[in-house]
Order: sequence, then structure tokens, then C-alpha cells
Amino acid sequence: MIGIFDSGIGGMTVARAVEQLLPDYSIVYFGDIARTPYGSKSAATITDYSLRNTEFLLKKGAEIIIIACNTASSVATEALRREFQVPIIEVITPAATKAIATTKTGRIGVIGTRATIRSGVYEQTICGQRPDFHVFSEACPLLVPLVEEGWTNKQETKMIIRRYLHPLKDKQIDTLVLGCTHYPLLTQLIQTRVGKRVTLIDSSVETAKYVRDLLTEQPQLIAREEKGIVTHRYFVSDLTDAAKTVARKIFARPLELILT
Amino acid sequence: MIGIFDSGIGGMTVARAVEQLLPDYSIVYFGDIARTPYGSKSAATITDYSLRNTEFLLKKGAEIIIIACNTASSVATEALRREFQVPIIEVITPAATKAIATTKTGRIGVIGTRATIRSGVYEQTICGQRPDFHVFSEACPLLVPLVEEGWTNKQETKMIIRRYLHPLKDKQIDTLVLGCTHYPLLTQLIQTRVGKRVTLIDSSVETAKYVRDLLTEQPQLIAREEKGIVTHRYFVSDLTDAAKTVARKIFARPLELILT
Repeated sequence: MIGIFDSGIGGMTVARAVEQLLPDYSIVYFGDIARTPYGSKSAATITDYSLRNTEFLLKKGAEIIIIACNTASSVATEALRREFQVPIIEVITPAATKAIATTKTGRIGVIGTRATIRSGVYEQTICGQRPDFHVFSEACPLLVPLVEEGWTNKQETKMIIRRYLHPLKDKQIDTLVLGCTHYPLLTQLIQTRVGKRVTLIDSSVETAKYVRDLLTEQPQLIAREEKGIVTHRYFVSDLTDAAKTVARKIFARPLELILT
Repeated sequence: MIGIFDSGIGGMTVARAVEQLLPDYSIVYFGDIARTPYGSKSAATITDYSLRNTEFLLKKGAEIIIIACNTASSVATEALRREFQVPIIEVITPAATKAIATTKTGRIGVIGTRATIRSGVYEQTICGQRPDFHVFSEACPLLVPLVEEGWTNKQETKMIIRRYLHPLKDKQIDTLVLGCTHYPLLTQLIQTRVGKRVTLIDSSVETAKYVRDLLTEQPQLIAREEKGIVTHRYFVSDLTDAAKTVARKIFARPLELILT
């Protein structure tokens, strides 16, 4: 069983991609809606929450853990790997790897929450492999509340995206990492803003591909269910109408959210 | 000692008003930044947090409790009064009372978080006293993140306020309750939008006045400190740069925030 957690509902973009790429695996998801958002909080608090979320998923039978949240991946991955024996998969490395493979100019943009950008994890990961590359980062803290409100195509959202992306305008990037699992819901507005010559990297999709490749190489990591008894359970620490609406938008189907 | 709690930093507008109106009383404040915001969460979760926050303040010596948060006041006041013996003061009644005293037409607008507006508490309080009055409510969920980002005078914030207040445009209100302790930081933009013939009611200031009157009538509620040893302590459950910046803006002085 694949365990996935996020600060709330953004990580469901990862869960949806995993459902699609790995249809024979069961998923247990935890969305920490009662404490959302993580992106504006301190590293110590985010790490504390991530430890608790992982414990919850392990109790529910998870055999690998996907941190479906760039913020928690940025600051809590090492603590989780120290604390738990199961494979801990974060969303940074798959997105960074894809960005390195995609760029032709070596000029890569990254957008994310304040905590993700402050951590510098994308620069470290990309420039650790390619010291000749240039990474330009911008924190976009209001995009998460805008997505959670469902304002994914409003004029105000377009203006806020324009303001946030403005500093990247003259950097001549050819690749932009969507370094937050909420941002795939804003793909169209962001693509329009940066222009079609810039390739967007979706950390949700890249992470699902990474997990698919991992399980192809090491199938023993997960005790496979028999076909036909795959179950997906979506737990949340709080249940709100806005969460139900965004979940339905992400999965394009009604989704039962189970309150813990 | 006066205990004050809020979901985060918005309640500091109440604390500042209490400091100014009651300079001889000590204050202990708790801002639940680690779980902020409350306004988009469920009543059960908000009540659970409010109970814990009150326990914390009582342990620190609080003799009365001010719920400096419209959201928590809306959904958790009764639970706190059942659970604890000390006076529990909420921000709704003072603001509603002032709105009733202010309006000439009996047409009152209320803006607040989704949880506050959904609770219907302002309608119940105002129409409970004056069934002939009309209350028009609008939830403005993005204003809290905008204030917490410090975007209190940005074009995007003006546009979002315009969108939120649009349904109130034809209601001919003459009084508008700022039903969220973050909104006093947006007074100028909101006043410009609704026009100077509409009187804004600041729940923070009205609550501080209510507490001043209460302590004038019942001074025995608080064992008064000797003059000169008044102390104000501001505790927070998480410490972020954005919180420090907004706190400094509210108090117009550097403020020591103590991490619990």
C-alpha cells in the first residue's frame, strides 16, 4: 500500500497521478486540513506535523511514504528518513531531475511557497548535479489560498501571478518548476504568463513517474494486493466544503473524504 | 491578568486596543500561528483549538478570557462557557451592539471569514434585539491571507475587496461591521470602496471598550497588579518572519513574540 500525505488537498494532484500510473496499487492518503497551510509556517512546526502524518499512514498499512507536498519535502525529508525505516519519497528530486533533462539553456525558474523557496532545496538539488546551471526562485505565498478558494481562473489570480512572475521575466529561463502541488491547478494561467517557449515541470506528475519506476525496479517494496481488491482511502484531519469542491475538481469525480 | 487568544496575529488588534484603554492591566496573549487560519476550518476543529488555547491562558494566570477572533467567537463561545468558570468575552456582541446603536436605516452589512458568516451569529445577535433590522452578510475568505502577507495597500487587494463587497452595493447599508480582527488593517481600502456615508464598526475597538466597561463595573474580576509592574506577554505556537512583520505593523513598535 502506498502512503501519501500533504498539508491539505494540493497533494491530491500527486495521488491522482499515482492512481493513473499505478492502477494496481492501493493508496492511503492523509490531508492535514486542520493545520493547513504549511507553506507559511516554520521548519520546526512543519517537521513535527510531517512526523505525525507519517506515523498515521504507517498505522494504516502504508509500506512506502510519498511526501506529496513541496514544503514538507523541503524541510522534513531528512527527519522522516532518520525516524522511519520505510522508503520516504519526496517531490523535489523528481521535479529537479526532469528540469535538468528538459532545459536547453541551463536557466531554470522555480516557484513555490515561502518555506520551500527559503529552504533553497531546488537550487541545491539542481546545482549539486549541474553547477553550471542557474536557478531563479520566487515565493508565491498567495497562490495556495487562491487555489483552495477555487479562484483558478479569476482576473485577480492572473494579476497576482503576473506580479509574482515579474522578477523572472528578464531571466531568460526556458524551464519553470511548479514547486508546489497546488500549482498544477493554475497551469493554464502560468503558461499564458510565461509564454509557450517555457516548459512547465509538474512535480506531481514527475513524482508519480518516479514511484512507478521505483516499483518496477524493486517490486518487493510493496506486498501487492490481488487484482480487483485495490482500495483508495482519503483521510483528512478536517472536513470542509471547500476541500470537497477542490477534491472533486482534482479527481473529476466525487471523492469520499474520511474525517480522522 | 487579561487573557486574549486568536488564531494568529489578527487578534493583536484587540490586544493593542486593550493595552491603550486599560493601561494598568497585564495581558497574556496566545496566537495559534501553527494552526492558523481558523476561518476556513470546521466548527468542531475550531472549538477543539479554542478549548486548548483557553487552558493555556488560564495556566499562565489569566482571570478573564477574550476570544479575539470572530471565527472562534462565532462557533466556540458556548463550549468555552460550559467548560470554564472565568468570564469568557467574545467579539460579536460588542460589535453588534455598536452597529445597532449606529445605524439610522436599520440596514447593516457584515463581512467576515467563511466560518463566521456561515454561523449566522451576527444576524442572530442583531435581529434578536431588533427584529425589524436587516443584516446582509458576505464571506471574504482571502482577506486574511492578504493581510498576513502584508498586502494591505496593493491593487490586487483593492480588486478582491471590490469583488467581495459588490453584492452589498445595492443593499443601501449605512453601517458595515468588520467581523474579523484582521480587517482593521484594511480599513482605508474598505472605507474607500463602500463610501464615507457607511460607518465602519471595528470589532477590536468595540471589544476593548466592552472590557473596559465590564472592569469598571466589576473591578473584582481581576486581582489588580500594583502600578508599575504591568507586564504584557505575547505567546505564539509558531514563529515566522511574516508574523513578526505584521505584529510590528499592528503595534507600531517591535514586539517580542514568545514561542510556546
